[in-house]
Amino acid sequence: MKVFVLGGDGFCGWPTALHLSARGWDVVIVDDLSRRNIDNELEVQSLTPIRPMGERVAAWKELTGRTIGFVKLSLGREFDRLVQLIRDEAPDSIVHFAEQRAAPYSMKSARHKLYTVDNNLNATHHVLAAIVESGLDVHLAHLGTMGVYGYGTAGLRIPEGYLKVTVETDNGPAEQEILFPPNPGSIYHMTKTQDALLFQFYAKNDGLRITDLHQGIVWGTQTEETRRDERLINRFDYDGDYGTVLNRFLMQAAVGYPLTVHGGGGQTRAFIHIQDTVRCVELALKNPPKRGERVKILNQMTESRRVRDLAALVARIAGAEVSHVANPRQEADENELIVVNDQFKVLGLDPITLDEGLMAEVTEIASAYADRADRARIPCVSTWNDARAEALAAERRGSPAVRAVAG
Amino acid sequence: MKVFVLGGDGFCGWPTALHLSARGWDVVIVDDLSRRNIDNELEVQSLTPIRPMGERVAAWKELTGRTIGFVKLSLGREFDRLVQLIRDEAPDSIVHFAEQRAAPYSMKSARHKLYTVDNNLNATHHVLAAIVESGLDVHLAHLGTMGVYGYGTAGLRIPEGYLKVTVETDNGPAEQEILFPPNPGSIYHMTKTQDALLFQFYAKNDGLRITDLHQGIVWGTQTEETRRDERLINRFDYDGDYGTVLNRFLMQAAVGYPLTVHGGGGQTRAFIHIQDTVRCVELALKNPPKRGERVKILNQMTESRRVRDLAALVARIAGAEVSHVANPRQEADENELIVVNDQFKVLGLDPITLDEGLMAEVTEIASAYADRADRARIPCVSTWNDARAEALAAERRGSPAVRAVAG
Repeated sequence: MKVFVLGGDGFCGWPTALHLSARGWDVVIVDDLSRRNIDNELEVQSLTPIRPMGERVAAWKELTGRTIGFVKLSLGREFDRLVQLIRDEAPDSIVHFAEQRAAPYSMKSARHKLYTVDNNLNATHHVLAAIVESGLDVHLAHLGTMGVYGYGTAGLRIPEGYLKVTVETDNGPAEQEILFPPNPGSIYHMTKTQDALLFQFYAKNDGLRITDLHQGIVWGTQTEETRRDERLINRFDYDGDYGTVLNRFLMQAAVGYPLTVHGGGGQTRAFIHIQDTVRCVELALKNPPKRGERVKILNQMTESRRVRDLAALVARIAGAEVSHVANPRQEADENELIVVNDQFKVLGLDPITLDEGLMAEVTEIASAYADRADRARIPCVSTWNDARAEALAAERRGSPAVRAVAG
Repeated sequence: MKVFVLGGDGFCGWPTALHLSARGWDVVIVDDLSRRNIDNELEVQSLTPIRPMGERVAAWKELTGRTIGFVKLSLGREFDRLVQLIRDEAPDSIVHFAEQRAAPYSMKSARHKLYTVDNNLNATHHVLAAIVESGLDVHLAHLGTMGVYGYGTAGLRIPEGYLKVTVETDNGPAEQEILFPPNPGSIYHMTKTQDALLFQFYAKNDGLRITDLHQGIVWGTQTEETRRDERLINRFDYDGDYGTVLNRFLMQAAVGYPLTVHGGGGQTRAFIHIQDTVRCVELALKNPPKRGERVKILNQMTESRRVRDLAALVARIAGAEVSHVANPRQEADENELIVVNDQFKVLGLDPITLDEGLMAEVTEIASAYADRADRARIPCVSTWNDARAEALAAERRGSPAVRAVAG
C-alpha cells in the first residue's frame, strides 16, 4: 500500500510517515520545508534538535532497511508536477498535513493572515483537483481541527462533523443532517472550515473518497519510531506562535518561570497525544469511505480539559507557579466542550492520557533540552485585534511577573 | 458619500457605478480588467459593443459633468496599494463585485477551478484585511449568490442567510440561529460560501460592517444610465460560459435556433433585472449594519421560475422552438425554490417582472445586435465531471437539432 504524506516534515507529518513506514506502508513525503522557513522568519527553532530531511530518511533506512521517499514540492504552486507525481506513483492514499497550522501566526499581521488563507486554501484545492485530474481513485485523509466547531450551545455534544437539526417548513417540521455550523476562532481555524466546503463539493461532484480528521491539540513529542534514534527526533515548538498551550507550560516549568494562563483559563480544549495521532491516521487510512459516500468526519481527540486545570496539573508535576495574563485572543473566557469520539473508539483506539504521559514530557524533552530554549520567545505576542493588543501591552507595562517572563 | 466599486468594469459593476454616480455618490472604480481578458481567452465578446473604460468614464463626464475615478488594481495581488488607496480616499462604502462569476467557466478544467478559488478567495480576503489595516470604519457590500443555498428540503422557505434550527442537547431541545447550511453547485458557487466564512470571521473578530447580497440570476442589459448613450452600453454575454440561461435563450431566439434547455428544465432559479440590482445595491449601502452587528444578508431576487417555463415564455414572445439537451451540470433534475426577500420589499423595492420586461430585451438587444453573435459560442461546452461530459458528447454525436445549434 502506497501513501503520500503531504507536510511530512512537520510535527505531525514526520512521526506519521515513520509510523506508516514501520507498519509496511510505502511512504513518499511531499513537503516544501515551509515550516523550517517560518522558524527562520521567527528567529526560533525546535527545542529538540531536528535533523534535515536527507539525514532523517537516511537514518530511518539505516535502522530499518525501509525507504521513505521525499519530494520537495510547493503544493499550491506546482499543479502539473503534483498531477504527474500522483500518476507516476499511483498512491492508494494521501494524508494531507500541508497547511500553516498555528492560530497565533495566522493572526500576527495582515501579511500573515493573507499568507495563511492563500497557502492553506490553494494547497488543499490543488490536491483535490489533482486527484480528479489524475483519474485515479485515491483516498484523501485531511488533518482538520476541533477548532472548526462552535462552542455556543450549552449541553450540546459535539458530534462527528454532522449535526441533526429540525427546521420548520411549509409541510411541518423536518429533520435534516447538516455539516456542523462552523464558528472558527482564528484565520487558521477558518481556513479549515473553508477546506471543509471544498471536501463537500469534491465528494458530491466527483465522488472523491475523503476523510476529515477533526483533531484536538496535540501534545507529546515522541512516538515509538521517533524515539529510536536522536536523528529521528520530532519537533517540539515552545514559542508564542507555534507552541501550543501545553508545550508552553512545560517549557516555562523547565526554565523556572510561572505558567502564563491567558485570561481566567476557563477555555476548555480537546487534546490528543502524538502517538495516538499517528495511530488514528493509520486507522483512518484502513477504513476509508466508499466511493460516492459523503465525507467521513472523525473527531481525533481523546480528552477535554480546561486550560487552568491543565496549568494546575503541570504546576503540580513540575513544581511551577501559575500566572494569569491578558488573553491575546478574541474568545469567550469560559466554554464547555463535550465531544463525541465514538468512531475511533470502535476502531480500537486505547489512548494515552495526560495524567499518565505528562511526566515523561517534562523529563525527556522540556528539561533535557532546556538549554536550547530562547526565553524571550515563550510569550505569545500575536494578538487577535487592536483591543486585545492594547490590553496586553498595558498589562506588560504594569506587571512584574509577566515582564520577567518576557525578559 | 464616497464609494469604491470593485469590479466596476463588469456586467453588474458598471451599471452600479453609473447608478450611484447619478444619485450623487462619489464613485471610484477598481478593476483589473480580468473580465475583458477572459473574453480574449474564450475568443468571444459581449454582444453589445462595450467601450474601453477610459471612453466610458469620459462619456459619462461629458453627459453629466460627473467624474468617476478608475484605478487599475489586481485585488488579490497588490495589498499595499489597496491599503494605501483606502487610506487616501477614505470611502464610506466598498461594493465588491470583483470575482470570477461564471459557474461553467469555473468548471471548465482543473486550471479554471484553481483560478476561480485563488482569484475569488484572495480578492475577498485582501479587501477585508485591507479595511482592518486601514483603521477606517468602511461598510463592505459584497455580491453573493442565491446559489449558496441548498435546495434539499421540500417546503423550506429560503430565509435571508440565517436559519432557525432546533438541536438536541443534554439540557433538552435548544433553538439556534445558524448560517444557512451551504450546498453550492459549482466551484464558483463554492467560493461564495467560503467568502461567507471570511465575512463571519471579520465581523466577529474585527467588528467590520458587512452586507452580503445573495443575488439571483441577473437578466436584462440596460439601466436608466447605460441607456443614455451607446458609449455607456452594458455587457451582454451570450456564450456557453458567461451567458446565463435567459441570455442564451434570447440569443438563440434572435438567431433562429431552438432554445436549448438542460435536461428536463425542472430546475427552479431566482431572477432579478439589472435595473433592480443597481437599486438594491444603493438600498443596501444606505442601510448598513451597525458596528458589532452580525453580517447582514439580503436575498437580492424578485421572482423564481422553472427553466422550462422560462423557455416557454421566451419561445412565445420571440416565436422560437424549445429543444432539450443533456445537462452538463451535476445537479438534481427538479427542485423547488421558495425564497424570502422581505428586507428589500420593506426598503421599498418595486421590481421589474420578466413578463413585462422581456420583450424589450428581445428587440433592443438580442435582435438589434444579432449580427455581432458568433453562433458557435452559444452552447455550453463546460461540463461538471466526466460522466456529464460523456452524456453530452454522446448526444451531440446523435442529435441533429443540437448539432445545428453547435454548428
